[in-house]
Amino acid sequence: MKTGRTEAFSDGVLAIIITIMVLEMKAPDGASFNNLKPSLPVFLTYVLSFVYVGIYWNNHHHLFQAISNVNGKVLWANLNLLFWLSLFPFTTSWMGKNHFESTPTALYGCILFLAALAFKILVYCVIKIEGANSKIGIIYKSDKRVNISIALYLAGIGISYIYTLLAVFIYLIVAILWIIPDKRIEKSIH
Amino acid sequence: MKTGRTEAFSDGVLAIIITIMVLEMKAPDGASFNNLKPSLPVFLTYVLSFVYVGIYWNNHHHLFQAISNVNGKVLWANLNLLFWLSLFPFTTSWMGKNHFESTPTALYGCILFLAALAFKILVYCVIKIEGANSKIGIIYKSDKRVNISIALYLAGIGISYIYTLLAVFIYLIVAILWIIPDKRIEKSIH
Amino acid sequence: MKTGRTEAFSDGVLAIIITIMVLEMKAPDGASFNNLKPSLPVFLTYVLSFVYVGIYWNNHHHLFQAISNVNGKVLWANLNLLFWLSLFPFTTSWMGKNHFESTPTALYGCILFLAALAFKILVYCVIKIEGANSKIGIIYKSDKRVNISIALYLAGIGISYIYTLLAVFIYLIVAILWIIPDKRIEKSIH
Amino acid sequence: MKTGRTEAFSDGVLAIIITIMVLEMKAPDGASFNNLKPSLPVFLTYVLSFVYVGIYWNNHHHLFQAISNVNGKVLWANLNLLFWLSLFPFTTSWMGKNHFESTPTALYGCILFLAALAFKILVYCVIKIEGANSKIGIIYKSDKRVNISIALYLAGIGISYIYTLLAVFIYLIVAILWIIPDKRIEKSIH
Repeated sequence: MKTGRTEAFSDGVLAIIITIMVLEMKAPDGASFNNLKPSLPVFLTYVLSFVYVGIYWNNHHHLFQAISNVNGKVLWANLNLLFWLSLFPFTTSWMGKNHFESTPTALYGCILFLAALAFKILVYCVIKIEGANSKIGIIYKSDKRVNISIALYLAGIGISYIYTLLAVFIYLIVAILWIIPDKRIEKSIH
Repeated sequence: MKTGRTEAFSDGVLAIIITIMVLEMKAPDGASFNNLKPSLPVFLTYVLSFVYVGIYWNNHHHLFQAISNVNGKVLWANLNLLFWLSLFPFTTSWMGKNHFESTPTALYGCILFLAALAFKILVYCVIKIEGANSKIGIIYKSDKRVNISIALYLAGIGISYIYTLLAVFIYLIVAILWIIPDKRIEKSIH
Repeated sequence: MKTGRTEAFSDGVLAIIITIMVLEMKAPDGASFNNLKPSLPVFLTYVLSFVYVGIYWNNHHHLFQAISNVNGKVLWANLNLLFWLSLFPFTTSWMGKNHFESTPTALYGCILFLAALAFKILVYCVIKIEGANSKIGIIYKSDKRVNISIALYLAGIGISYIYTLLAVFIYLIVAILWIIPDKRIEKSIH
Repeated sequence: MKTGRTEAFSDGVLAIIITIMVLEMKAPDGASFNNLKPSLPVFLTYVLSFVYVGIYWNNHHHLFQAISNVNGKVLWANLNLLFWLSLFPFTTSWMGKNHFESTPTALYGCILFLAALAFKILVYCVIKIEGANSKIGIIYKSDKRVNISIALYLAGIGISYIYTLLAVFIYLIVAILWIIPDKRIEKSIH
């Protein structure tokens, strides 16, 4: 099977996930800047989650760029990734509503962790088709960035119960880590 | 007519159906794990319905993979399928809200049944174009999995009024039946 | 400019329009069939509007099938059509909520009328590029079905204030008129 | 990297943004034209924002039409543009709900300004790949329309606090400026 429809379906789902989160930001009834204040934490979590979905879309794009065929396992591994990403609006909304309290912040980290794990599984299924010596196999062999992210998410979940804002800061650091372009990947793909 | 736009439109509709169901999971106001409890049945029905939409997307993908042209009848048979699938969020939400009571569980099965029937009709319309001896005609001639699913859905609808959780369990079994890869189909398509 | 992105964008917008209408059908709190009763008119309007959006998607598909280039005017004529179609969920919801009262039913007809007019404008812009003797110019020269529909919508708007259900019936007749395949178009396109 | 998926993802996000704004127009409970009156300002802001998203989609279409490759920087500049556009429904809703009061109108202008700036950044990133002497480099060298728009948005933000409806009128003027086809661009692209 060609990758076309898997990419199109994933694009659709990611486009919706990234956009419906903004629906959580209800326009306040009053018309002054003060009325916007309660929306601020919701806005900040929206920014963080927008960046995360953007990162996943970028990674998904890079991954499927390098392959040309999928099988049933890849389709389900991809749906598994989309499932965890589809929970972002819920955890984003819960964390934003409760102004970064411990449990919502920990759950936010759990879903980030499970999405990262799902991405690793997807990469694994893709490499099984393409072979370990394929372009994609070589790029993802020493998958440092994903592993560091997973470790930091786990740290963030624990730290949520000690010093919550530090956990949010860690999630932010991981996001920044991914925005910085990985010269190595860009070079080997182009 | 080429299949491109029918696939793109279906991908869009399925991407929205699979994603808006998560909107039913409203973030609770409190910030403890206990506040999440009432969302649990909604979450479980979400998982079940996500898997079902995923299955339909997979099957749709496989079906259109094997054909290259559509006519007016296929377009309407496809819209008919999308219509029944578009009712999933409603029945999912009703079943989840009412913690798996009899009537919502039966209605959930009815919509599953009607969607499966719509898929059979779509396959029938496709085979009318491609011919009974085409690749797709041979694969779907002995359409055992669809027929077993339809029988199990009908059983589930009845059982909803006797022992509701068993009906939910039957719907789950059908889903698992479809996730297990059908070697026969994968072989003949590739 | 190629038609690819205009089709993709239109598919996206139509997929969302057709799907968000189902969001108006809120799952009732009770779990018996009686609790579903108030949703019935909303469901019936949903079916009617789903069919209408399906018809527009089909017509849009047929129209763009026959052309290969678009210009700025076509892009805006297309956005104009999408604008009126985007009001379907609003008028559908208003008519459904008020159980087919006069004014909502008339407004529903107005939007149907304006969408049909927008489609005529889009066809006109397309023919200006392709020429009156092109395939698409010949098909749409004697544009009987669109003209009859427009006349019936206008009739329906007036009749809404005399005998409302007859107006709904007229809208239904127009829809059926479009589902019946137009052999002439199918032949000349294939 | 090819531009295909960036276009598809952007189409998806823009299709959702343009459509979810209509969800703010809740169908009123009563069935007379008077019941529609409170929805009028919401409707008017919807029209304005629909036109704006339409303009951005058109410009995005023209821009990507002229290029064939993207890099990591373009992907993020594109996501940045989509982020600001994704805030349109929020500011549209806030302005519509409050019947064009000063602060919501100023914020509406701010987001228009930031989206225009994001578009300039995207063009800049694209030209860095294509080169200043490329087709796209020459078209956007003397980027008068974008610069005038940005100046008018800034004026509109200030005027919101003096005479609010004039600010709304300025936003309208900028929109009309963009709908008028730019013969120069159309010629050089085709």
